Amino acid sequence: MGDHGYAAWLRYEQVTGDSMASYASWANEMVLPAGVPVDGVLKTAVQELSRGIRSMLGTAPTVEHEPSRQRFIVLGVLGGGSLIDAAAGDTAALSSEGYILKTVHERDRAYIVAAGKSDKAVLYAAFHLLRLMQSGSAIDQLHLMESPTYSLRMINHWDNMDGSVERGYSGRSIFYENNNVLSDSERIRDYARLMASVGINGIAINNVNVHREETYLITEKLLPDVARIAEVFGEYGIKLFLSVNYAGTIEIGGLDTADPLDPQVRTWWKEKAAEVYRYIPDFGGFLVKADSENRPGPFTYGRDHADGANMLAEALEPYGGLVLWRCFVYNCHQDWRDRSTDRARAAYDHFKPLDGRFKDNVILQIKNGPMDFQVREPVSPLFGAMEHTNQMMEFQIAQEYTGQQKDVCFLVPQWKEVLNFDTYVKGSGSTVKEIAAGHVHAYTHSGITAVSNIGNDENWTGHHLAQANLYGYGRLIWNPELSSEEIAGEWAVQTFGGNEKVRDILVNFLLESWSIYENYTAPLGVGWMVTPHYHYGPDIDGYEYSKWGTYHFADHKGIGVDRTVATGTGYSSQYMQANSQVYDSLEACPDELLLFFHHVPYTHELKSGKTVVQHIYDTHFAGVERVEYWIGRWQELEGLVGVDRFRHVAARLNKQLDNAMAWRDIVNTYFFRKSGIPDAHNRVIY
Amino acid sequence: MGDHGYAAWLRYEQVTGDSMASYASWANEMVLPAGVPVDGVLKTAVQELSRGIRSMLGTAPTVEHEPSRQRFIVLGVLGGGSLIDAAAGDTAALSSEGYILKTVHERDRAYIVAAGKSDKAVLYAAFHLLRLMQSGSAIDQLHLMESPTYSLRMINHWDNMDGSVERGYSGRSIFYENNNVLSDSERIRDYARLMASVGINGIAINNVNVHREETYLITEKLLPDVARIAEVFGEYGIKLFLSVNYAGTIEIGGLDTADPLDPQVRTWWKEKAAEVYRYIPDFGGFLVKADSENRPGPFTYGRDHADGANMLAEALEPYGGLVLWRCFVYNCHQDWRDRSTDRARAAYDHFKPLDGRFKDNVILQIKNGPMDFQVREPVSPLFGAMEHTNQMMEFQIAQEYTGQQKDVCFLVPQWKEVLNFDTYVKGSGSTVKEIAAGHVHAYTHSGITAVSNIGNDENWTGHHLAQANLYGYGRLIWNPELSSEEIAGEWAVQTFGGNEKVRDILVNFLLESWSIYENYTAPLGVGWMVTPHYHYGPDIDGYEYSKWGTYHFADHKGIGVDRTVATGTGYSSQYMQANSQVYDSLEACPDELLLFFHHVPYTHELKSGKTVVQHIYDTHFAGVERVEYWIGRWQELEGLVGVDRFRHVAARLNKQLDNAMAWRDIVNTYFFRKSGIPDAHNRVIY
Repeated sequence: MGDHGYAAWLRYEQVTGDSMASYASWANEMVLPAGVPVDGVLKTAVQELSRGIRSMLGTAPTVEHEPSRQRFIVLGVLGGGSLIDAAAGDTAALSSEGYILKTVHERDRAYIVAAGKSDKAVLYAAFHLLRLMQSGSAIDQLHLMESPTYSLRMINHWDNMDGSVERGYSGRSIFYENNNVLSDSERIRDYARLMASVGINGIAINNVNVHREETYLITEKLLPDVARIAEVFGEYGIKLFLSVNYAGTIEIGGLDTADPLDPQVRTWWKEKAAEVYRYIPDFGGFLVKADSENRPGPFTYGRDHADGANMLAEALEPYGGLVLWRCFVYNCHQDWRDRSTDRARAAYDHFKPLDGRFKDNVILQIKNGPMDFQVREPVSPLFGAMEHTNQMMEFQIAQEYTGQQKDVCFLVPQWKEVLNFDTYVKGSGSTVKEIAAGHVHAYTHSGITAVSNIGNDENWTGHHLAQANLYGYGRLIWNPELSSEEIAGEWAVQTFGGNEKVRDILVNFLLESWSIYENYTAPLGVGWMVTPHYHYGPDIDGYEYSKWGTYHFADHKGIGVDRTVATGTGYSSQYMQANSQVYDSLEACPDELLLFFHHVPYTHELKSGKTVVQHIYDTHFAGVERVEYWIGRWQELEGLVGVDRFRHVAARLNKQLDNAMAWRDIVNTYFFRKSGIPDAHNRVIY
Repeated sequence: MGDHGYAAWLRYEQVTGDSMASYASWANEMVLPAGVPVDGVLKTAVQELSRGIRSMLGTAPTVEHEPSRQRFIVLGVLGGGSLIDAAAGDTAALSSEGYILKTVHERDRAYIVAAGKSDKAVLYAAFHLLRLMQSGSAIDQLHLMESPTYSLRMINHWDNMDGSVERGYSGRSIFYENNNVLSDSERIRDYARLMASVGINGIAINNVNVHREETYLITEKLLPDVARIAEVFGEYGIKLFLSVNYAGTIEIGGLDTADPLDPQVRTWWKEKAAEVYRYIPDFGGFLVKADSENRPGPFTYGRDHADGANMLAEALEPYGGLVLWRCFVYNCHQDWRDRSTDRARAAYDHFKPLDGRFKDNVILQIKNGPMDFQVREPVSPLFGAMEHTNQMMEFQIAQEYTGQQKDVCFLVPQWKEVLNFDTYVKGSGSTVKEIAAGHVHAYTHSGITAVSNIGNDENWTGHHLAQANLYGYGRLIWNPELSSEEIAGEWAVQTFGGNEKVRDILVNFLLESWSIYENYTAPLGVGWMVTPHYHYGPDIDGYEYSKWGTYHFADHKGIGVDRTVATGTGYSSQYMQANSQVYDSLEACPDELLLFFHHVPYTHELKSGKTVVQHIYDTHFAGVERVEYWIGRWQELEGLVGVDRFRHVAARLNKQLDNAMAWRDIVNTYFFRKSGIPDAHNRVIY
């Protein structure tokens, strides 16, 4: 039977060589403090650690209340036993999800303490210890304290109950099939393991576009099934969230309104919340896409987003539930002839005036860029702009616009750029990562969420290398100070083993992949140029004359969207001055965002010294060349990685090459035909 | 209950005024020759004539064997009775489907003879007489002899058994639903009536793309159902044809090959033919799309189209069945970068070398243009180019590329241009209409077919005015000498009544509609520029970088496809010299096909004196203006046509205006951006 990557980064392969003896010396015995019931997440932690150790070392540890050996592992909650507490030292700085990993050497014995502030934290500690062992790291001198930077570390599924996954590139849903909830699926447990192993603590299991069937997820018809999933999640410290239909009162509630100020509507949602919590006591809350892309919302009743969100928040409040209210709101029936409307402005224009109006258990969920998960966008100016409103950042792990898990595009570097972006909302240092952590504004709740990239493909993510995005997302939002290289390295070693050549090729390919993808797709931040609806493959004018507000305005002289204050849509003014003056200036604006902010002639000279059109030609030739290069490098790994995964990736790389060549030739031909300016190097343009 | 157009042109409304008395004087009695059994199609003729008369005059005629009145109608087969034969005179020139309509005035009585060479011809005579009465024409001095110009007058349905209709714009199939054959449907009988009333004598009831379920139409599983439809058709003189899956031997025959020279394959098809004819003794034959757009075919086995077609022909031969073999064969995986391959050449290049190789009961079915039913194309050079091979012309009544029955586009003028095109294959006068009639080459079988535009919409064709295409198609291929105006007028009066203003507006709108549609869509014969796959609405580059072989090659200097011999693909050489020298010459080539044959600068001056780009601007502004004009004219008909049909058409006209404006603005903006050349009249271009 082949190895098709189902285990992802939790392979726990047999340890060999020097590490084996060292690990075995510690891991034959696991000590749990007496008197603490081993159930719930703590039980999961014990099981996971045992399972990992057995798999890597061949033998599961014995589980004791008192140590019987000279070396052992102690697992437990801080404050829960003398061995732990003696070792722990000052743990006041740890959050409720924080833990320590410490090797204690005493005169006649030594032990590793894996202890956390909560059961969940113990599970994270266990997974950390396993990660170290999987990576061949020494565990003899551990002295680690870890707390997650963000309290909400979420995943959003865009799964529909018919089994389809909106923007899914990895098969069908693992949660649903034929309008049934797969509540008894072992696969859901395996998924929860994977997510907990990288620290995810909240998952919304249905699409933000809530269709007919999914509207019933919050009713007694389906809650028993949902509750079984919540239970599995709960064992891994993950809260379950549901996307809800804002018009639920009309569609299934028997009312003729969804007016958020209508008493009947409010009562209905309160009863719904009570019902949900009866079935799922630790339910996370509601995720809502309202008044967006033809979804219903409070606008219908002359109310605003605060009215709508607060109505739901009021219902969830007694139970500690949250409302995650998406800010992806814009006019999706724009007339392309109208040059004054700018979709990029929409989220800020809609939400900024509402600052302070939202209840404490509402969080605004804001996409990382003002458009829609493009390969390159500036950071949303709404993020951090509302001092008195909880916010969380939304990324997209699913590679909708970034290669659809056919092409390799490791997104951690993109996310890091976003997190490190300084908004200046409270002066220098007001980075996105600090805002999302609640360090800039005193948010009651905040964090990071992302659209999942998994499905029921054997390897979860379609492309084996797309697993790196799922892993990397979790790791990054646990600790945004990790470098892309560290994350890629961790993933590569756990997923493809310790061979150095394998690791190097994987890491370097991953690190370059976003840049390669950007090179052969839409240039200089202008975005789109994809096949409408599908969003894979080039169609330069595909969205140019559409209703979607996504234009490049290329003519025979130049290209780009003028979003400056003086002559454009004024979008740049939504940033703090330190940023707006950079974006507004043709000279200061960074090359990679030039066409997002400015309309320039093809002959405009970039900071690189090249003209815009020559840059387009050069990057598109280079993009293809680099894909060819990495195809060659991948071939070097034959025999070094499992044959199934080797071939699978090789096949996808060939698809990527086809795609890159299509982009290269169509983009170059398009601009050559339009500008009439030849390539300086006389390469083939059709 | 509203009038939603179900009756189409067979409304038979109550006759009033002077006509009433005149018609009634003739139509109180119908005389049938004694001794002739009144069954089959003859019975249908009697019933239809009675039904029409009763509807128009309030009373059905009595049916007698001997006249009892001084005025009456005689109905029957020529040679079938003294009244008929005395009146008929020399009818040697009539074909087996020909008939006479003659008013005979004797001393003490007068009668109208409606008599044909066959039962079917009598039915046509009856419908002709009814048409005259519906149109208010005098019938006192009739002296008509009619034979259809084409022996095969067919309709092809692209209906699938799941109920969908490929390229259908009028609802679902009337033949199938949920993979069942609707064999007991009254609607199918009503459809047969409509078709017989305009002379259609052959209908293929399933899509040329034969999917899984439809492959079983020629098996005992479905033949009983198909036979019931064939029986209904038969009562109206219509032969039923089926599209077959070339790979039937593999898909349902249990063989592992579809090699046309394989004895097992030949035996299988012979058995199939025998089976089909057991159920349907007057079965028409097989329609086949092979080796086209990913359909299976003989190429797989290193055989050619003649081998494939002859294999099926051999099976059908004992029963007089025909093989209609489509010539829509081209490379649908073309690389747009390859400028030497020309899809327009494909049919000729594939089939011309096979001339003389096909059996006598094979007919090659050739689309009217070399591409695919565009608004404007030259006539296919394959038509008439094979002296020793039966051919028939394929039109498309369904408005796939011509407005999809949302926009008005009366296609009779287009078809007439095609029919009147002189191919010169046997010198001057070798027009398409003569070739299709078998007058130029001595074809054993020939004729005309077309893709249906109907579905289960109440009014059959989606747009009420699209009924005119269905009616007009039948009438035109009965008699290609009818003018577009005559046909439109006949249809308008029968369908919307005798009011002169109504008739004038309808006729003039219909006659201009093709030109209007051409004006606001792709210019000067270049074609395409439609939304890929859907084929409605503009997407100028939608097919430009695709695999479909459908390009316009617009750059900043010019546009068009060079199909000349000297510098282009050489497609023009597929025509006889009289035509090729015209198309090949930049000076001689007619404006409306200029960009089909030549790549020219935007500043190239047309015969009209305008530049290409100014022509583009002018026609696109004009197209919208004419839609607006006709919307205004239609409003004048309020109260003069039924309210339901009035409103329905008015609503569609508004959709057409939206479409026309989208085309105008996108085409004009595209070419302004690309060329940089402003409109000479400074109108708004975005």
